[in-house]
Amino acid sequence: MALESSSAAHPWRTLWLDDAGVVKTLDQTRLPFAQVEIALTSLEDCARAIETMQVRGAPLIGATAAIGLALALREAPDEASLQRAATRLAATRPTAVNLHWALARVADAVVPLAMPQRARHAWAQALAIVEEDVAVNAAIGEQGAALARAHFAWLAQAPGAHQGRALQWLTHCNAGRLATVAHGTALAPIYALHAAGVAQHVWVDETRPRNQGASLTAWELGQAGIAHTVIADNAGGQLMRAGAVDVVIVGCDRVARNGDVANKIGTYLKALAARDCGLPFWVACPASTFDPSLVSGAEIPIEERSAREVTHFSGRNERGEWTEVQVTPDGSPARNPAFDVTPARLVDALITERGVCAASEAGLAALWPQRFAR
Amino acid sequence: MALESSSAAHPWRTLWLDDAGVVKTLDQTRLPFAQVEIALTSLEDCARAIETMQVRGAPLIGATAAIGLALALREAPDEASLQRAATRLAATRPTAVNLHWALARVADAVVPLAMPQRARHAWAQALAIVEEDVAVNAAIGEQGAALARAHFAWLAQAPGAHQGRALQWLTHCNAGRLATVAHGTALAPIYALHAAGVAQHVWVDETRPRNQGASLTAWELGQAGIAHTVIADNAGGQLMRAGAVDVVIVGCDRVARNGDVANKIGTYLKALAARDCGLPFWVACPASTFDPSLVSGAEIPIEERSAREVTHFSGRNERGEWTEVQVTPDGSPARNPAFDVTPARLVDALITERGVCAASEAGLAALWPQRFAR
Repeated sequence: MALESSSAAHPWRTLWLDDAGVVKTLDQTRLPFAQVEIALTSLEDCARAIETMQVRGAPLIGATAAIGLALALREAPDEASLQRAATRLAATRPTAVNLHWALARVADAVVPLAMPQRARHAWAQALAIVEEDVAVNAAIGEQGAALARAHFAWLAQAPGAHQGRALQWLTHCNAGRLATVAHGTALAPIYALHAAGVAQHVWVDETRPRNQGASLTAWELGQAGIAHTVIADNAGGQLMRAGAVDVVIVGCDRVARNGDVANKIGTYLKALAARDCGLPFWVACPASTFDPSLVSGAEIPIEERSAREVTHFSGRNERGEWTEVQVTPDGSPARNPAFDVTPARLVDALITERGVCAASEAGLAALWPQRFAR
Repeated sequence: MALESSSAAHPWRTLWLDDAGVVKTLDQTRLPFAQVEIALTSLEDCARAIETMQVRGAPLIGATAAIGLALALREAPDEASLQRAATRLAATRPTAVNLHWALARVADAVVPLAMPQRARHAWAQALAIVEEDVAVNAAIGEQGAALARAHFAWLAQAPGAHQGRALQWLTHCNAGRLATVAHGTALAPIYALHAAGVAQHVWVDETRPRNQGASLTAWELGQAGIAHTVIADNAGGQLMRAGAVDVVIVGCDRVARNGDVANKIGTYLKALAARDCGLPFWVACPASTFDPSLVSGAEIPIEERSAREVTHFSGRNERGEWTEVQVTPDGSPARNPAFDVTPARLVDALITERGVCAASEAGLAALWPQRFAR
């Protein structure tokens, strides 16, 4: 059992086992104002946590789904139970492919086994997925940090020589520790460079409509002591034009065979601005985010969420209570696509645990021949 | 006296005279949940209304400033009073040039006059600016409607022939009736086509951080019975890629000599997406928005507003009360540039009261030789 035993002892893990062997996570809908731990003790706990976005982020969704499937097989290891649980979990969120990857991996591991062995092996496989996520994201951090050092040669200078200049990142949504079991994807290189003493500052898109940047990325960067500034999603283009950004980095939810990437709605606009301003646009993700079965991003299903996320805002009122306020007039409808597709031509680098590659079938196949072989 | 006498009698005017001859407007910080009329009876009333964004929108700011200067000269018509009032009003908002244009126009009209005549002439000049704004924006509406008819030939077909297809606009912020004395700028062509029976639908960017799209544009389109849908600012790019948008139209706050336009923060990102998707990007503005004194948009001052507009959201809570909620963690800073500059190369047409022109010095000079003569 490699999972750490408590949140307090290991504050940088988003999924852990408590002393009783129960899987715990943070309820991310309560952040940044309350750190509420929740237990994932059943299939339904896991499915609901994903659906209600108590857990979110492609890698963390995958890990949570694996736990959910293992918990279901603990209840009943038969084919019908497996099928029902996998169907329930697969239906929670449509866009992140890590969910399906994790379910398939657990299912593939147990289907050949006899019934009495299934629960134990499913649990072991789920925990392996959880632990691998930690190692994979640490590797993404190192790969991304090396890319940054190679791209920004001035980082190698003594601090005096670049006059205290901090590397200026811009990121969208939350692809940090909270989107994964640990380390994050887009934020992993930033954490790696921070550990190495590199001065950095992160422009944090608030990321409407659910404000994961304002509420989650700002919180975790603050916890880590990394300088950051929250901005409206609208502001990033102007900051890039003004020379205030060195590089844009985001995570992603699915990579198609041609290198198109689906990520939180609004990512495409930042990729356009980075290109227009001559800035690098980097996408960090583990191999579990690849979907070679899709020819291009046009085939990626885009989740449409509740209009209420657009018409209403949630936050802490002056009395410290969680409150929802309406902004739009009664009777004005809203639409809420939750992801967009950034075409591969706008992505300057894919940062994976195995290395950095071009966002193209050739680039992906060079690094991941088994996944992208024809 | 051409100003209409009441809001109720003339619901499409944002500035009017009541029966006692007092200038009235709507407090736009109370929309969409309350229609609160406020009186502008002094220089300070006008300056504060602009500063606190009870009135906003480049043309309406200009008209309100003109009224403010005239009211100050009513109190005291001397040079010092004129100077003090103009300085006070000019300092309220930095980006919209219409403010300076209106102040200069009133001042130029009264400076040659003897003291006893100044107040009356200033008032007449201010009312002329107000009335001209109505006529100018009506003309912008006709010019923009003609451009749309020319660009989208299918609009000329009988409704049956285009199978009830509605012209799909996307707009950012509020450049509607509420941003002007009447008709609006970006929304003026939409109102003109609506009056002519053309089926339309408007995607309304919520326009963080002050949500003028969600609260003002949605409200006024709803009042006018025009189909619209509010979206997060992040969503526009994906909708364009999905073919859900025919044309993007915005107002603007200042046009530099080279055709660069300053407009609400986030405009640049939509211009990039329109270009990337092969969609027209049109900017509607009166000649009072031109600033030939600036070589390019790089010289336009960009207002930086309070971080609190980013860290906190305001709206109506479930008890119907106006409430502010915090979204970011305590201790996370925010930045709030209120405008961005869209380079002329991304603007497909400038729609002015005199006609449509290219966003370039040559284009502007062809239509407005006196303003753009070398």
